Formats: sequence, structure tokens, C-alpha cells
Amino acid sequence: MQAVSDGPRWMLRLAEGERIPEVFAELARAHGIRAAAVSMGIGQLREVRLAFWNGSEYVPRDISSPVELVSLAGSIAESDGEPSVHLHATVGLADHSSMAGHLISATVGLLVESMVVAFPGRTFARPFDESVGLRRLDLGPTG
Amino acid sequence: MQAVSDGPRWMLRLAEGERIPEVFAELARAHGIRAAAVSMGIGQLREVRLAFWNGSEYVPRDISSPVELVSLAGSIAESDGEPSVHLHATVGLADHSSMAGHLISATVGLLVESMVVAFPGRTFARPFDESVGLRRLDLGPTG
Amino acid sequence: MQAVSDGPRWMLRLAEGERIPEVFAELARAHGIRAAAVSMGIGQLREVRLAFWNGSEYVPRDISSPVELVSLAGSIAESDGEPSVHLHATVGLADHSSMAGHLISATVGLLVESMVVAFPGRTFARPFDESVGLRRLDLGPTG
Repeated sequence: MQAVSDGPRWMLRLAEGERIPEVFAELARAHGIRAAAVSMGIGQLREVRLAFWNGSEYVPRDISSPVELVSLAGSIAESDGEPSVHLHATVGLADHSSMAGHLISATVGLLVESMVVAFPGRTFARPFDESVGLRRLDLGPTG
Repeated sequence: MQAVSDGPRWMLRLAEGERIPEVFAELARAHGIRAAAVSMGIGQLREVRLAFWNGSEYVPRDISSPVELVSLAGSIAESDGEPSVHLHATVGLADHSSMAGHLISATVGLLVESMVVAFPGRTFARPFDESVGLRRLDLGPTG
Repeated sequence: MQAVSDGPRWMLRLAEGERIPEVFAELARAHGIRAAAVSMGIGQLREVRLAFWNGSEYVPRDISSPVELVSLAGSIAESDGEPSVHLHATVGLADHSSMAGHLISATVGLLVESMVVAFPGRTFARPFDESVGLRRLDLGPTG
């Protein structure tokens, strides 16, 4: 991973073989980022696992062939003292159709270009919400 | 809605049952935002109405089941003294396929995470353009 | 093209008939942008050419009808002294389905709204990588 910053904005260039979402957690740990939006991501992915929340669980879908990563968005929070990354993605297939959903995991193919926008001085949390069976983002004190 | 800002950047956490696009207009009114980009949005939506502009009108499509919100983007301008919100969205369905278009309206499901980037001191307009039958963004004085 | 800036952030309003990606190169030339993310784009496109990288070449797909531009993301670098623009896009079709991939070229339909976030003082490069047969983003010195 290459990572350059302009204040709270980080541009990333992920390298072949790096793992998503782990690489975003690595960025957060290396630079003390406890609150951020993942606001852009394109490139190529392989070994993609997307998922759809059916109301009680994530229904996964593994995509065996490499795909174009066309949109990547989400957030970096902190949960139990560790970075907690939540990402959704749209991917383009060989026939130019697309699939989209919660991105459980993927491996970077040729490359991924991404931008992360941090909110310095803040800590976003992701507490487990028993009423829905999911962790849900909490931005902390507002204003 | 939770909303936290770092200068012109706003991170939002929309709560179940809140309405899109109204909640973005509410943010704009509460904080005097007259020019902004909606640059990221993920989460879960229900009661989604997407639309396609066929050259003379928006052809709507209602999606009755909850969907993953995978991308959300657009702008906040001011029209007739009120916030004018324009959004496009990609949603992921239960079979992991996707649909995409102009987002007329939706209700937040479990949550939506979004980022808004304001352009302080500016007012974007959205005047009605009779030649095409649509409101179109005008950024005002450039430079 | 209308273009307004708030520091490194540029909001763009592309006009009917303008060409993508050329218009982003034009912005870069006009304002000396040598490193940037294209972090948002919506609107309407026509004459869209998407592509899928099959491991050795881009397989193109021309879309003859106008489409909704639902997501646009990528980067602006510099290559051989000229702006080098890399974009991926999701488009919405008349039946509200979507297609997604590498965006080779498109013409702006009614309008496109987009945001570009520059990294002032930096130069992103896009050297040709013979091992894969593609230009790949290089962010330059990291830190």
C-alpha cells in the first residue's frame, strides 16, 4: 500500500494481493485514524465475497473471476480498541453487468485506487446492536 | 440523524425510518448549507423509488423489498429559498444483482452512513430549464 | 464546464456535449492539478464506452442509448507531462438495471455533476507497467 495525505484526506494505492478490508484497518492503525469515510475506490478485485442482509443474516456470494471494482464506500470506526471497517461495493463483470452489496472480503487484483477522508479528533464507534443482530455506526457526540 | 463536521465535511448516520432526500434538506436547513456534494452513502434502504430519464419524463421503478444501498452521490443546492437535493443511487438486491438510477425517494432501513462535503460561502442553484423540462445545477460564479 | 473550488475541492458542472475523460484533463491543465481523486459523479451520459479488463486487454461495450450516470470515481495523475485520467463508472439503463466498468469514454447528456479532490503539491504518476501491459497509478513519495 502506498498512502499519501493532504491533511485529513488520504489517497491510497493498494497493491496486488493485498486484502480488503484488512488494508484499511492497517492504514487506520498506522496513522491513528479512529473516524473516517472511505469515499472512493476503483481498480480490480479477485476472490470477492459480496453479501446481502436478509433481515437476520448476511447471505454471501463468492465471485470466482476477477472483476472491475467500480465503487467502494464506507466507514472506519473503532470497536473494542481495533479498527472496524464497513464497506459496500459495486463490481463490473466480464459481460459488463454489475453486482453490488456489502463487501465482506476481496483481494486486490492489478491495483486499487482509493480515498479515505478522516475526521481528526473524533472516534466513530460500531457497537453491537442486539435488537438487529448487527454492529451499527455511532458517530459519538454530535455538533 | 447524527451529524458531525470537520470543517466543510459532514459525516452522517441516518436512522431507521428517516426519509431520503428529506433528511439531506434537513441537514442543509439546520446548518445553513447552500452548496454541497453528497459524496458517499451506504447502508440499507426500503421503499426505494428509482427513476430513469427517458428524454421527456422520469420513468419510476418501485422496489418493494429492502435493498443494500451501495452508492449514493449528488448535490445540495438552493431553489426558491429551499434546499434542492439531487441524488443517484446504486442498490444491491437479494440475488446480489444491482439496480441504479435517479433516486426519487427511499426510507432508511437499518441505517445509512453518508458524507456531505459543503462549499462554504457559495450557493449552488437549480433553476428550471424549460428547454429540457428539468431543473439543472448551476454552480454560480466560477473561479 | 463550470468549476468552483474550495481549497483543494472542486465542484464541476459539465455541459451537454462535453467529453469524458477529456474534460477532467482540461480542468487539470487549467488549474495545474497533478494529483487528484475524482470522488463523485452523477448525471446523464450518451455514447458510453465501458470496458472490462480480461487479463490482457480491455473488452469494450458501447451503449447506444442515453443512460443515467450513477457513480463515477477515479484519479487524475500526470503521464509524459500530460494529465492522465482513470475512471470507473456505474450507469443505469432504461429498465433500471445497471452496467459498470472501466469508463473509456462518454459524452455528457443533460448534465454531469462531479467533485474532484486535489492533493496540492503532489504529482501522481501513471507509468506503463510492462509486466501487466497497463499504466498503473504511482502516488510518488509516501508519508
